Amino acid sequence: MKRIILASASPRRREIMTLAGLPFDVIVSDCDEEVSYDGPEDMVRKLSARKAEYVAEKLQKEETEPHLVIGADTVVYFRDQILGKPKDKEDAFRMLTELSGNSHVVYTGVTVIDTATDRTETFCEATKVEFYPVTEEEIRAYIATGDPLDKAGSYGVQGLGAFLVRRIEGDYFTVVGLPIAHLMQILRKY
Amino acid sequence: MKRIILASASPRRREIMTLAGLPFDVIVSDCDEEVSYDGPEDMVRKLSARKAEYVAEKLQKEETEPHLVIGADTVVYFRDQILGKPKDKEDAFRMLTELSGNSHVVYTGVTVIDTATDRTETFCEATKVEFYPVTEEEIRAYIATGDPLDKAGSYGVQGLGAFLVRRIEGDYFTVVGLPIAHLMQILRKY
Repeated sequence: MKRIILASASPRRREIMTLAGLPFDVIVSDCDEEVSYDGPEDMVRKLSARKAEYVAEKLQKEETEPHLVIGADTVVYFRDQILGKPKDKEDAFRMLTELSGNSHVVYTGVTVIDTATDRTETFCEATKVEFYPVTEEEIRAYIATGDPLDKAGSYGVQGLGAFLVRRIEGDYFTVVGLPIAHLMQILRKY
Repeated sequence: MKRIILASASPRRREIMTLAGLPFDVIVSDCDEEVSYDGPEDMVRKLSARKAEYVAEKLQKEETEPHLVIGADTVVYFRDQILGKPKDKEDAFRMLTELSGNSHVVYTGVTVIDTATDRTETFCEATKVEFYPVTEEEIRAYIATGDPLDKAGSYGVQGLGAFLVRRIEGDYFTVVGLPIAHLMQILRKY
């Protein structure tokens, strides 16, 4: 198989790839993340493609050996609002207070580009997440750990934020940030 | 809060507790695991209680400070069969071949005992898991990694086995072996 490049700075995505036994390198894409979009699925698809394209073009200019470049983007969708990473602690508090006791949907878009052929595949997975009702005190204590601040929707499902989640419907790793099973279905074609 | 004792040898359960930020010690319960039961929920409830009771009684005899002892047991349920850990590689192959392309349910029972009062609480979580159809070759390759051999149903959802799982309905950590969010709802009462 061609060498895999993960075009993402997210430590969670790296960890998922590692646990799944996929060898890869990381090249962080610092492309512009402003896009026009029609809903959360369209947004994460477009942003995953932009991140992958940015790194693929860079590799093609350098005329390196062929690579498979993976881009991904994750957002939380709740009551017609798209929630990305919080701006600050107060923004995190506002998001978690809204999500408490309710269900939302996490969208992760993934794009795979083969730099040898420019063949590009994009998919999106959506997972419904139901939160327990949590108290203001619990939310403040969770924010004080720092865990919410670099995460879409202001929580991480896999660690200190696990106490929030009553149940999910869909793929778990989509909520962490990379739908690994679906991705592996695509990678095995190469 | 009282000191927490996890009465389990499972490295997955330890990891979940650690990631969730709960301080704990481990005392492995080597009680008899033969019980009479009526279905998978009854089985995991009884076995989680037996594991916790075994360790709680040991601590009470030693007259140590009060502890909260946590016991847990996990099984996979598919077509009226309860699947525990595989006996060997062939048994793992048989289980994974049956589960491929189908849905099963993972049951995890948890018991918490307060050694100061003997107050005991048991609950069970059930999560539906849908597998992708996988090939004989993929199953053999997965078994060769050794990952399935110490796990109920012959797979681990959190690492090399992640490629198997299309979607779940319920709590993810129930599938790993410890429903941490529900457990934390109980622990915060102490």
